[in-house]
Amino acid sequence: MKILQNTLKCIEPSYKEVMIKTKERLDALAKPIGSLGILEEIAVKISGITGDVYNTLSKKNIIIICGDNGVVDEGVSTCPQEVTETVTYNFVKGITGVCALSKFTNTELTIADLGIKCDMNSEKILKRKISYGTKNMAKEPAMTKEQTIKAIESGIEIVDKLAKEGYKVLGTGEMGIGNTTTSAAVLSVLSGLDVDKVTGKGSGLTDEQLNHKKNVIKKAIEINKPDKNDIIDVIGKVGGYDIAGLCGCFLAAAKHRIPIVIDGFIASISALCAQRLNENCKDYMFPSHLSAEPGAIYIMKELKLEPILNLKMRLGEGSGCPLAFNIMEAALYTMENMATFEEAKICKNDYIDIREQDSI
Amino acid sequence: MKILQNTLKCIEPSYKEVMIKTKERLDALAKPIGSLGILEEIAVKISGITGDVYNTLSKKNIIIICGDNGVVDEGVSTCPQEVTETVTYNFVKGITGVCALSKFTNTELTIADLGIKCDMNSEKILKRKISYGTKNMAKEPAMTKEQTIKAIESGIEIVDKLAKEGYKVLGTGEMGIGNTTTSAAVLSVLSGLDVDKVTGKGSGLTDEQLNHKKNVIKKAIEINKPDKNDIIDVIGKVGGYDIAGLCGCFLAAAKHRIPIVIDGFIASISALCAQRLNENCKDYMFPSHLSAEPGAIYIMKELKLEPILNLKMRLGEGSGCPLAFNIMEAALYTMENMATFEEAKICKNDYIDIREQDSI
Repeated sequence: MKILQNTLKCIEPSYKEVMIKTKERLDALAKPIGSLGILEEIAVKISGITGDVYNTLSKKNIIIICGDNGVVDEGVSTCPQEVTETVTYNFVKGITGVCALSKFTNTELTIADLGIKCDMNSEKILKRKISYGTKNMAKEPAMTKEQTIKAIESGIEIVDKLAKEGYKVLGTGEMGIGNTTTSAAVLSVLSGLDVDKVTGKGSGLTDEQLNHKKNVIKKAIEINKPDKNDIIDVIGKVGGYDIAGLCGCFLAAAKHRIPIVIDGFIASISALCAQRLNENCKDYMFPSHLSAEPGAIYIMKELKLEPILNLKMRLGEGSGCPLAFNIMEAALYTMENMATFEEAKICKNDYIDIREQDSI
Repeated sequence: MKILQNTLKCIEPSYKEVMIKTKERLDALAKPIGSLGILEEIAVKISGITGDVYNTLSKKNIIIICGDNGVVDEGVSTCPQEVTETVTYNFVKGITGVCALSKFTNTELTIADLGIKCDMNSEKILKRKISYGTKNMAKEPAMTKEQTIKAIESGIEIVDKLAKEGYKVLGTGEMGIGNTTTSAAVLSVLSGLDVDKVTGKGSGLTDEQLNHKKNVIKKAIEINKPDKNDIIDVIGKVGGYDIAGLCGCFLAAAKHRIPIVIDGFIASISALCAQRLNENCKDYMFPSHLSAEPGAIYIMKELKLEPILNLKMRLGEGSGCPLAFNIMEAALYTMENMATFEEAKICKNDYIDIREQDSI
């Protein structure tokens, strides 16, 4: 609990005065004000995080939190729970989608086991197991309070280590069969939105299976009665190790003033939990693309964030992070390497006019 | 005319059977069918272009066609026409937005003068000048038929050369004060849509100035009476050198079976012209982001293409191309480097289920 409490105390808002300086630099570049769109917003936001007008994201890392969910016993997924284990090994082997995209963008991966149902035999997997899967939330709380805090603090400690190693930007991914079920449950409690509204069908579920999934979530909420004002209570009772761990990652990224990318529905709900624990957290978050899950839009709205990619990806694994990193790096590079109006020998007022009327 | 006619004769559709093979490879990868979204569509489309399942876009080039527009005499832009010249020199100096983004993604630029109002003194600018700017279309045709064809053929010859030099993907940009005015005119004629609907305000124009711009376009169409079924007549009478030149680039890219990125409103209308000249052209086109100009959506709809970036950029210059190239390269890399279901030791049916229900 101490690690979590200390982290929460150390999270500060962005450096607003540096953001103003960065905006001034951007507005001095030979282009119409704001015409680099979201690239400019990214550059401004990152400068507010680091406190420097110019930045590079040289060292990049995606943290993938893996864990099993007891609620799978209720048949919320038609897939065998063992796939959590198999895919986790595949991350280590470097053969999944996120692995390929990470190699392409020179990004490293951190694979952490917080609660896979079996022992994992690989030195490349961070050993952070809290238990062999969570309990079945349709019958009892998924985790104890101690387990929940331990999972959040594991996420914090993982980021503490990466910060020490000099990583300049982080991404978030997960692996755990059943985790859209837990994520929808946490979102429904935190937002007050109907379970029916926030639970996704996924093209693999029949109408009947979807109804069953919704009923399981409703039952879990009814039985456990999570207190919506107590984030740790909510994550513990109807969440999972991945949600808790990633929540810790978002908190620690904010503490260390490191930009962190939200990728997918599970990372989105984790980001929302972090934001509810400390509202400064969202100053450090960058969403990659919008998840197909119906609850995702609500989360982005509350976080006041807008995804930068329109690639209709639904692979999970944090696979949108490497592409988001690339666009963030392009934004920073452009701000540093474009000419100012003076250097370009263009009168600022002239240029604004053309660019806004023509050549748009 | 012979170059154009020969080019039009040589444009073939995509290799559909290779696209099917690529789709099979993608569906054999350890991920739910289609879960890499538009990345998969990109990989399939490129394979249909080249005829190879696996591709790399190692050599990349953005063609920027520069030229002045006589219609600027009507006051459709509050910006001095000389900015066309200044910005063209700035491309050569490597200091504009597209230059910075191109350096970041290891992309080269081809700067071509098809009709800048003055002589350009730089060896790095391709000398293709047809005249010192077009005529004022509000009074007479912007170009003669011969000039129009020469401009289109210049675009073709530029791409012929780049194809010979081994470029694997091309981008499109432009510089020419007044070119959203000409583009809106061409679009209105080709689409039959009201000038009022397709003419953009741009944040720099007052309501009064916008009305004036619309009236100038209406007058140009009325006076010149372009034949909407004769693309060359339309481009010649109410278009410009940049639209004609880029149209030639799209035609030649299709002829040489090279993927080509559409960036911005002017390139979009050029792409539409190419598509109307030979309907196979769109098999070779990839839009980067949606232009803010109101006519852009119509063009994408007719071309049945969907932009991949959501960055709210409105800088022009082809500045979205480098970012689009990057995502295209990521798509190709991922397809080649992910494991198959067999390699990943996952049962295909299982995996589809998890991924579509959970971990989305």
